[in-house]
Formats: sequence, structure tokens, C-alpha cells
Amino acid sequence: MKFFSRVCFIIFLLAGSALAQRNRQAATAYPPQLTAELKQLEEAALKSEYAWDQLAHLTNNIGPRPAGSAQANHAAQYVAAELRKLGLEVRLEKVTVPHWVRGEETAALTEFPGMAPGTTQKIVLTALGGSVATPAQGLTAEVVVVNNFDELAALGHDKVAGKIVLFNAKFDKQLAAMGHGGQAYGEAVIYRAIGANAAAKLGAVAALIRSVGGTDYRLPHTGMMQYLSDAPQIPGAAVTAEDADLLAYLVRQGSVRMHLTLTPQMLADVDSYNVVADLKGSEQPDQVVIVSGHLDSWDLGTGAIDDGAGVAVAMQAAQLIKQLGLKPRRTIRVIAWMNEEFGVSGGHAYAAAHKDEAGKHFAAIESDLGAGHPAGISMAAPPASLQLLRPAAQVLQAIGAPILQTTEFTETDIDPLLSLGVPCFGPIQDDRFYFNYHHTAADTLDKVVPRELQENAAVMAVLAYALSNLPGELQRPAPKPPRAF
Amino acid sequence: MKFFSRVCFIIFLLAGSALAQRNRQAATAYPPQLTAELKQLEEAALKSEYAWDQLAHLTNNIGPRPAGSAQANHAAQYVAAELRKLGLEVRLEKVTVPHWVRGEETAALTEFPGMAPGTTQKIVLTALGGSVATPAQGLTAEVVVVNNFDELAALGHDKVAGKIVLFNAKFDKQLAAMGHGGQAYGEAVIYRAIGANAAAKLGAVAALIRSVGGTDYRLPHTGMMQYLSDAPQIPGAAVTAEDADLLAYLVRQGSVRMHLTLTPQMLADVDSYNVVADLKGSEQPDQVVIVSGHLDSWDLGTGAIDDGAGVAVAMQAAQLIKQLGLKPRRTIRVIAWMNEEFGVSGGHAYAAAHKDEAGKHFAAIESDLGAGHPAGISMAAPPASLQLLRPAAQVLQAIGAPILQTTEFTETDIDPLLSLGVPCFGPIQDDRFYFNYHHTAADTLDKVVPRELQENAAVMAVLAYALSNLPGELQRPAPKPPRAF
Repeated sequence: MKFFSRVCFIIFLLAGSALAQRNRQAATAYPPQLTAELKQLEEAALKSEYAWDQLAHLTNNIGPRPAGSAQANHAAQYVAAELRKLGLEVRLEKVTVPHWVRGEETAALTEFPGMAPGTTQKIVLTALGGSVATPAQGLTAEVVVVNNFDELAALGHDKVAGKIVLFNAKFDKQLAAMGHGGQAYGEAVIYRAIGANAAAKLGAVAALIRSVGGTDYRLPHTGMMQYLSDAPQIPGAAVTAEDADLLAYLVRQGSVRMHLTLTPQMLADVDSYNVVADLKGSEQPDQVVIVSGHLDSWDLGTGAIDDGAGVAVAMQAAQLIKQLGLKPRRTIRVIAWMNEEFGVSGGHAYAAAHKDEAGKHFAAIESDLGAGHPAGISMAAPPASLQLLRPAAQVLQAIGAPILQTTEFTETDIDPLLSLGVPCFGPIQDDRFYFNYHHTAADTLDKVVPRELQENAAVMAVLAYALSNLPGELQRPAPKPPRAF
Repeated sequence: MKFFSRVCFIIFLLAGSALAQRNRQAATAYPPQLTAELKQLEEAALKSEYAWDQLAHLTNNIGPRPAGSAQANHAAQYVAAELRKLGLEVRLEKVTVPHWVRGEETAALTEFPGMAPGTTQKIVLTALGGSVATPAQGLTAEVVVVNNFDELAALGHDKVAGKIVLFNAKFDKQLAAMGHGGQAYGEAVIYRAIGANAAAKLGAVAALIRSVGGTDYRLPHTGMMQYLSDAPQIPGAAVTAEDADLLAYLVRQGSVRMHLTLTPQMLADVDSYNVVADLKGSEQPDQVVIVSGHLDSWDLGTGAIDDGAGVAVAMQAAQLIKQLGLKPRRTIRVIAWMNEEFGVSGGHAYAAAHKDEAGKHFAAIESDLGAGHPAGISMAAPPASLQLLRPAAQVLQAIGAPILQTTEFTETDIDPLLSLGVPCFGPIQDDRFYFNYHHTAADTLDKVVPRELQENAAVMAVLAYALSNLPGELQRPAPKPPRAF
């Protein structure tokens, strides 16, 4: 295995070197001044503490920013004020968001094989976003465990009705550790999204999932669930990986009953805001390059990697351009999106409000995969356009971010723009550890490495400025329906 | 750094090879039959699932086993019954234990720099074992942060009285990752033990510590605290590393006030038990070799690494000897100690009850550092006795456990026996990750690797059987006062 790793590494180095070669060949495409300015931006990013200070304020001084919360709206006002300080033209674009609040969430076993009389086993869990409540005093039911929808279907109504169903689909930690976290996430998250719906169709009284993430610290991962119209709404929660293992072990041995109390509430919708801040272009001010992250977070942690870091590096892109006195030809528009987590309200509202200007959106960038070391840039647009980014990638080679690649998908908030034919971009980040903390109480400032945040700020600044000054037009992706979730 | 590591590794290999050489030279000291029996035990351990099944039952079917709990006493009855099944002579030796129970434990900031009106930041914490309660409705006070006792003293009564003191002493994760977890633990645990006492002397209303452990998953580490007679008793709790960082950040910026509610209770003492089970020696039955772990655990997790694993491998030592039909010359005594965590009641009670037989205790072994890969055996006794263990170490070389070393300290439950002059032993374990989970909710079955548990069972069985048949006498350590804590 070690030998194999080394061989792979050498191949990687050779490939990198070939890439660098290609980058050098294409580097003449930018005017020397532009290349020099990109290098200045990169170097300034690596020396700046601006993004870190903004991220610290968002996470520590404001805290969790779930959609509809006072903190989320306070954060929007804060970011708007900070961007005004930079001299940008700032407006708050209204977004109506749902307002779901977590309540009590406890679970304990009332019967299990081997149970000492008068004792219990606590089950650590957290309600899924959007979940309805159990009765205030909780409910008690037998637990059945399935690994997938097929096993649920095989049980059928007789064995599911009146029960609590646990979907024990494992997040593939090895896949994630190899850098395919998104794939591992995608395979398991379907049970979070619609597991409760499937269980409810067969008469279940509640649905639990094994947490979608790589943690082995008895930490539950929350996230949004969906109710479809073809089944009753039953409560949904995520148990930790450890508790899923415990339940699976006990259920194999005999009858397991759980008392489950979840008291979340869906309150009235709230007016909230996308923060939209323009650094006007000197030559084509009506052409827009968006640089963005999302401002809302889940309520358990303080939203550092998801996605305070994305907002902070987007803010820093504008800050660095201002600091260095650079003049983007096209307008650079910083956006702090509201409510990515609970229905992508901000992304959809923006796309709807600006639909007629879609053609004026030259490109959109979002960072929403933490702040791990960036290896380069991914683009959702026809591959021919990559050539135009090669000189920028060459500049980013200095921080180990020379890779250019195309992707079918883009980040959630800008996906509605992609659907309108806007070329979309994002940093390629080291996400090997991202899904260990994603949507948990441990998504806190310390999970961001200051140097890596600076590298991400460098990528965002270099990419945004290169796009705003790009000599040439990007090919636009074909319009398509937006993603379901 | 990589180069250095490799050089170290090569030196390590050479040293290991020299050790193997020495082992081979001394290997003639055991009769061939004994050596063959030790090899049989080792091989059988690597094929057996007995220890795993016992550990799974203790953690999953019984669960947390804090001293005084129904689970702890149920576990004692369970282990006694299992050892009777093996044909051992089993008795429950009474131990009076304290019975502290955790209550509500919540904390939230009511004032901090930058706070959005009407919001808060939750602080994740857990009460320390033995803590008194706050008023039922909680208390609210300003937070002061110190890194050590000197900084507390420098603040003095004026700046501490009426406040909540946070001792922000960091557990040295790098030291732990290098294999010096015990050292890292020892340096930080003093604040858990007596921090509240020091703060109370200066008028503090509560004392918090930064959790003593390596977790970065917002997971608090509990553990025992002590009240001394020279200060009022104030509540004590451990915040997570992340929350300690947050408090330190905010307190640097301005006034921080916390609402803290802890409602643990100290109930009446409870009768509990050490499980003591003899596999009688064939030639010197009055000579005893103890093989042990502790049965109680903290209440947050299910006590897999601390110390269900120790009990399971001690049980397995006897099980393997029985399974193979071997005849130890001296008596092998399996002990599952009660209440290591909350005052070492079982260890002290046993030493007091068996004081007059101390001279008949040939040796005592305890495993209480998880179930990480064992690298060999440590001994608290005069170094000359190591020579007698070399043939056993040579057998253990097959599983990568050839190291023999002396140590000044031994595990807590058998330390009272060491004080009486009994040679004490333990496996040398890989503890690089142990303190990430120690005393947390995440101390659960999945933290034990089945193969490593088998290796530990092999060490316990080989060591116990070698000692019970040792050709020669161990030199006995000089009696000394027992450890304070």
C-alpha cells in the first residue's frame, strides 16, 4: 500500500509538472499588468488577518446563525456594515425564510436485552431541521433497524407500523478520507432527506437516521429533512454513529423500546436578507462577477466551516482589491447568501429577482466546503473556457493551488444561476475532514487553520479579479432545471 | 521532520533487534513446556472472541457503570456469574462506594462583546464528579479566565470574588500524540482535581476547567474533583476545548457573563463489590497472581476503554487457561475492581482486607489504559526481576509486544498493593488516542479494535500464566505510602 501510494504520488507530481507546463504555455494570454496584480492579491492575502477576524466575529461574537434567527439577521447587518466600510455599494435584498427552532431532544431505552432492572441507556441524537415534534411528554415505541430502503420495504407495514425506524446507512469514512467526501455524503444523505417519509408511509411513528458524517465522537449531525405530501409527517432525528451501532447490536438480540422526546417548532416565516455589495467595474460595470458564501448556519455549532469561512473569504476578495487600489473592469459583487441550509431561499430569491439580468452575470463563485487547503479551481461551464483561467492557475501555483477542472455541479446558492446559464466557479478544497464536523456542534472557529483560510482568500481574490478582467468571454453553460435539493 | 522520524524508526528497529537478542539469550530460563504453554495461550487469544463478547455485554447490554449505580452492581453480579461459569471460585467482596448522580447541566452566555440583542451563546460543559449543585434555577456571574494557579493568585480576591473562574490549562495534544498521554494528562488534571478549591478560596462562585483530553469534537471530559476543608464547596464543571477557546476570546474583548445550572446530587453511600475469582494454583495455591481491570466507569459513555476492556482481558486470561486445560502453579486471581473513578474504594478496601496476606501476593497486574496495541510489559518492582520475564517477552514478540520496562507508578487499583510491597505489572499500550475519548460520552465499544483487544488478552494471559509458573522469585518493591490521587 505504501509503495502504491508513492507511485501514485510520483504520477501526481509528474501530472502536476505537465500541468504547470501547460500553464506556462498559456500564461501569455493575460496582460503583464493583470498577472502582476493577481500576484499582488495572492501575496497580500497570505499576509492578511482580515478574513480570520471576520470569521472570528461571525462565529464567536455573533454565534450560530440559523435562518430566521436574530443572529442571522444581525449577521446580515454586520456584514453589510463591514462591506460599506470598504466603500462598496451595499444593499440588503429581502428573502423570506422559514423559522424552525430546536426544542428538547432526548431519547432513552426503556427495554433492551440484558437491561439491568431500573436502568436505561441514553441515546444521543438531534432533531433534523424541519422535524415536527413528538407529543410534549414524548412517545415510546419499539425500534426497528434497516440499512436501506429495500430492507424497509421488505419489512412492510406489519413490522413497521407503530415503530421507530432507524436507517442505519453508514457514511463511508474511507471514501471521505480519500478526498471523496461529497460522494460519501451524497450516498447517505438521501435517508436524512426522505427517510421519514418512507417510514411514515408504512405507519412508523418516528424515523431516526445514522448521522451523515464521519465523526466518531458521539456527535450527531443535523441537516434538513423533507416532508412530501404522500405520507403523514412524523418526527425525524439523527443519532450518533455510536448510538446507531448500539441500537443495531441490541435489536439483533431482541426487543428494544425507546422513549423519544423531540419538541422543535416551526414558527412563522421571517423577513431576512441576502447581503449584496458591489465593487463597481471600471469598464463594464453592468457585467457582474459574484464572489460569495452563505451567512446562515445550523444552530448546533457556530458555522465556521459551514459557511462563515466562505463569507469571510468572499469579503476578503473585495477588501484586498480595495486595499491594493486595483480596478476591476467588470463589477465584483460580494454576496452573503441567506438560508442555504433550509431550502436555499436566498439563492432562489436572487435568481428570481435578477432573472432578466442573467446574461449580465459574467460568472459566479461560491465557497461552501469549509476552508481546507485549496488545490485549485473548479468550473461548471463548457471545458473550453478553462484555457482562459490557466494564467490565474499559474499564479495560484505559488500556494499549491494550480489545478483547473470542470464539474457538473456547483455550490447550492449559485446553482439557480447555473441553471440560468451563468458560468459557476469554486475553490477545490481539501475536504477530507470537513464531513467530520459538518452540521455538528463542533463546527467552530478552531476547525479553520489560519494559513489555509488565507490560501482560500487568495484563491477567491485571484479568481474574482481574473474573471472581472478576463480578456475574452467564457462559454456559457446550457440552461437547465435547478437541482431538487 | 520526516527524515528524522525515519532515523528514529531505524534506531528503534535496531534497539528492538538488540532486545530480541537479549531475549533469546535468556530464553533458556523457562522449562520448554512452560514456553510452549505460553505460546498456546497467545495463539488462542488471537483466535478468541471471548473478551470482545464480554466487553460488548458490559458496554451495550449493561451500559454506563458509575459507582453506586444499579448498572455497576448488576455488572458485578454478571461478571461473577461469568467467572463461575469458567469454574473459578468466586466471591463478592463488599466495598462501600459514594453515589453521585449527574443532573441538569446547562450554560449560556447572557452578556458578551458583540452579542446580538436577545441572543446567547450556549456553552457545552459537564459537571465534574463530586461537584455540588448550583441553585436549582442556576447562577449568573461574570467569567474570568486564567491559564494557571499563578494567574489566579495574581488576580486576587478583588477580581475573583463573585465570579466564575475558568482554568484554561491546555491538554498537550502533541505530547499525547507522541505517546506521552499520561504526562499530558498529569500536567492538566491538577486543575480538575483542585481548581475549584483554589478559586473558592478567593471567593469564586463556580469553577470551570478546560476539558482534560485531546478531543476537538466539542465533547467535555468529566472526572473526579476534590473538595478540601480550607475553602467553601463551589460547583465545578468541564467545558469543551472549543468553549474554553470561545470564552478566552470573548473575555479578552470585554465583559462576559454566564448563566450556569448544575444540579448533581451526592446520595447516600451504597454497598457495592469487588469481584474476586480464584483459579487455584496446583502447587502453591496460597501464592496469588492478580489479573485485573476496573468494572466501574464514568456515566457519560459506556466505559469501553475505561475500563471494560481491562475487565474483559482479565476475564479472558482465566478463560484461556481453562480452555487449554493448563495448570498454573500459583493461584491466578481475577479481580474486577469497583470504583476506581471515584476514590479507588475497591483497591483500598482489598488492600485493607488482605493486608496480612500481602506477602502471599506474588504479583498484581492491571490493565486500565484502554485496549490499544500492546508493545510489551511494564513492571513496578526492582529492575533485576525483569530478567525473569524475558522468556515471556520473547513469546510476545510474535504480536509485537516484546518490550520490558520498569515504571515508578502502576495502575490505580493495584497501587495500594504496590504500597504493601507487591510487584505490580501492566501492559504497555498505544495510548496516543486514549485521552481523546477518556471520560467522555464517546467512550463506547467501537473505540476498541477487535484485533488489538485480542493482543491485549494475549499479553494478560501470557503474563499472568508466566508469573504463576515463574521459576524464581521476583524482588519486591519497598513499601511506600499510597498515592494521594
